[in-house]
This record gives sequence, structure tokens and C-alpha cells, in this order.
Amino acid sequence: MSKPLILVSNDDGITAPGIRNLVEVMLKIGDVVVVAPDGPQSGMGHAITIGNPLRLKKVDIFDKADAYECSGTPADCVKIAKHFVLKDRRPDLVVSGINHGSNTSISVLYSGTMSAAIEASIEGLPAIGFSLCDYGSSADFSHTLEYVEKIARQSLDKGMPKGVALNVNFPAKQHENLKGIKVCRQANAKWQEEFDERFDPYGRRYFWMAGNFVNYDKGEDNDEWAIANNYISVVPVKYDLTAHHAIITLNEEWDI
Amino acid sequence: MSKPLILVSNDDGITAPGIRNLVEVMLKIGDVVVVAPDGPQSGMGHAITIGNPLRLKKVDIFDKADAYECSGTPADCVKIAKHFVLKDRRPDLVVSGINHGSNTSISVLYSGTMSAAIEASIEGLPAIGFSLCDYGSSADFSHTLEYVEKIARQSLDKGMPKGVALNVNFPAKQHENLKGIKVCRQANAKWQEEFDERFDPYGRRYFWMAGNFVNYDKGEDNDEWAIANNYISVVPVKYDLTAHHAIITLNEEWDI
Repeated sequence: MSKPLILVSNDDGITAPGIRNLVEVMLKIGDVVVVAPDGPQSGMGHAITIGNPLRLKKVDIFDKADAYECSGTPADCVKIAKHFVLKDRRPDLVVSGINHGSNTSISVLYSGTMSAAIEASIEGLPAIGFSLCDYGSSADFSHTLEYVEKIARQSLDKGMPKGVALNVNFPAKQHENLKGIKVCRQANAKWQEEFDERFDPYGRRYFWMAGNFVNYDKGEDNDEWAIANNYISVVPVKYDLTAHHAIITLNEEWDI
Repeated sequence: MSKPLILVSNDDGITAPGIRNLVEVMLKIGDVVVVAPDGPQSGMGHAITIGNPLRLKKVDIFDKADAYECSGTPADCVKIAKHFVLKDRRPDLVVSGINHGSNTSISVLYSGTMSAAIEASIEGLPAIGFSLCDYGSSADFSHTLEYVEKIARQSLDKGMPKGVALNVNFPAKQHENLKGIKVCRQANAKWQEEFDERFDPYGRRYFWMAGNFVNYDKGEDNDEWAIANNYISVVPVKYDLTAHHAIITLNEEWDI
């Protein structure tokens, strides 16, 4: 029986430690092809490149995996991987990450890591985004690796629910061991922005956007609760954004 | 009674004809502040600017509306509008568009127009994205304006369902009148990409990404059907991406 084919991407760029850890785990499971951005693409959401050309270059930076760096967004990487790099070879699994930083709750919308996974799910491919809730450049991924392997193997064994990708977040490494995996919903939380006003050497104004995370969610069935309690959070996410309950409200209450 | 305050943004840039049409309609309803990108931001999805500064400049291009152009994405525009430009004034409504081109079905994920509306809904503000299914630079918006006004007024009168923004698409202008408004779900359709491989004057390879739209949906309750049948489609969309049904599947069938 042939090995599964696994496509790997991320949003921190192809040289990030997180993707190197992810590639090493995936090489235990199958044949690996990497198509990832040639530089940081954090916060790119589900952006795609329209009106500009894309570059794609083969790079020799992983021992046993073919790798390509792309000038585009994470969603572009998955598109060019599927329709150009892999052509007639259909991946059995698409994984993205391991992201340097949290993608829990509302961050799933801004996340380039998750956009790669969601793009793959639109293509009908089983897909998982992995993130570590630690923004440090020397973050320790060691506690995540056995779980990354377990979740990836389960997705190959059991199949992914249709139209769904998984958003997996790991707590930062702590003294105590991880408590296990919680399947969760997306927490009701958001980023509250502040804009730091400055002036450049030419006297022109510019702003740095900074955000404070605000969690409104009191539940224990959401990803923020899981991470805060040293569990791994797994949120199944879908690309059908329809608010079905609101269709009824609009039809009954609005005069349109 | 004071007039409602309406924030206007888009993704085609502040000088696009679509936003000019939208501003003119909103001025009939309330006081208008425009914060929109200083250039095209189509396909930017829910991208935000991390790690780079933002520029913001007041511009005098609308007769009766304060206007600011911003170097960031549509989501950035809404954030800087709410937290810096408007400060303590809370908009009663946020509208985005009128986009030059369709944002039906899966395009909602890639759409900068809709990311502005969705960002506003995350902030708890009633929000609507308007798009015209006509990519032409001299597209005719005349048939859309009465409906834009009607839908905006209804959202102010009736309020928006919590956590929801509206994705409104108009058919391109045709000889026959529009048939009316259909509240719909997002169609099950996607873009099938092709990558056109070329070489620059220096012999280096590059690609143009082009997409063909593929509609798998046979239903008559979705936005693609509405547009194809000369109805205006209104899809309520939400930012909670949780696939709730899949939580049960994963808990019962997976061994994690």
C-alpha cells in the first residue's frame, strides 16, 4: 500500500521552526510536499493574489520532503500546490502550521494558517491547521508533536466531516503535562484595537495597530477555556458562513 | 432626533464609482463618514496589517461626507474608523461597497468588501456589504440604488440579528427590471484555478492565477440561483465558523 501524500503549508514562512517541526512529524506518516510562503504572511486571513503575478521556486531545505516557496498568501500556496505543483496527485491530507501564536476564537478569521486549511477544505481535502499559543521565536514545540501525529493519523483513518477543517491550538509548554484534547466551539471573544499614532522622520503621521484580546465567553465548551486549562483545543470550522437562523428572522420581520 | 451615523468602506478603493454611488444613497439616510482603502484591495479576504504601520489621510472628494483614505485592508479601515476616526461616536450602520463584481457563494471568504462588513459585525455593529455582479469599469449601478436604500433603512428600523452581517448581491443591469429580493443561503460553489505560466524579460518564471467559477448547487434557495434569475440575493453571514454538527462526529467517531 502506498504512503499517504501530505501537503504542508503555513503562514510564518517556509523557514519558520514551526513548519520544520510539522514536516518532521508528517514524514513519519507519509510522503510530504511543502508549498509555503517565502516570507511571513501572518494576519493575511483568506486573502488571495489578484492582479499580481505569483512566483514559485523549488528550495532544498528539508531532508526528505520536496519544498517550494511561493510569493503569495497561504491560500495561494494551497491553490498553486493543488493545481500546479501536485497536478494529478491528490493529497490525502493538508496540514498548516505549526503557527507561532494562537489562532483560537475570532483569530481564525484573521489567520493565514487557517486560511490554508480552509482553502484545502473548499477543495474537498481533509485539512488541519495547527497553532502553538506561544509567540516566542524560540518557542518549544516538543509537547505538541505526539498530538499533531495522533490527530493527523485519525483524520486519515476516520476521514474528515464534509466541508470541515480542524483548527487545533496547543497551550504554550508548561511544567505540567497537557491534559488531553477537547473538541470545542469557537469562543465568543475579539480583539480590541488601539492605534499608536507616531510621526516619521519626514513629519508624516503613521499608526501601529495593536490589539488587546477580550474574552466575553463564560462557557467551558470553547477553545479559550480549553487552552486556559491546559487542554489542546480542536474546533471544526466550516466555510459556509450562512447564518441559517437569521434567514427566518429576515423573512419574518423585515419588509424587503 | 439626530440623524443616524453611517460608516462607509469598500475594497475597490476610495475613488471607485461603486463607493461614490453608495455614499450618495447613504447621505439620504444619515450623516456619512468614509474610511476606505487608498487603492484596490480586492481579494484581501479578512486580512489585517500586522508588523507594518498604517497611513491615514483626510481627503476632500465627497460633497457632504468626511472621508479618509487608509493604506490598509478593508478590515483595517473599519478598525481604524471605529477606534481612531470616530472614537466615541458609535456608527448606527456600517456599509461596504458597492463592489465592482460578484461576492456570491464562496467569494464571501475572499472578499474585501465583505471583510469590512464582517469586521463591523464583530464589533457589534449592524453591517451590510453590497456588490454588483458586473466587473466592468463603467458598470451601471442605477438599478441597485433604491434597493440599497431600502435594505439600509430596514436594518436601521428593525435591527440586525446578533453576530450577523448581510451579503447583498445585485444582478448586472438588464433590460427587464429586477424581480425583487431573496433571502438566501450561500451557494455550494467554488473557484477552480488555473495557473498561466510565463517568463519575465530576465527569464524568470511567474504565474497568473485565473479562476473558473463552478457551481455544484442545484437548489433554488441560494444566492447563485437568485442572481441567475434576476433577483437581489441577501445572505446573512456569521463570523462564528464552528461546524457544530461536526463536534458530535469528532467526539463519537474519532479516538482523540
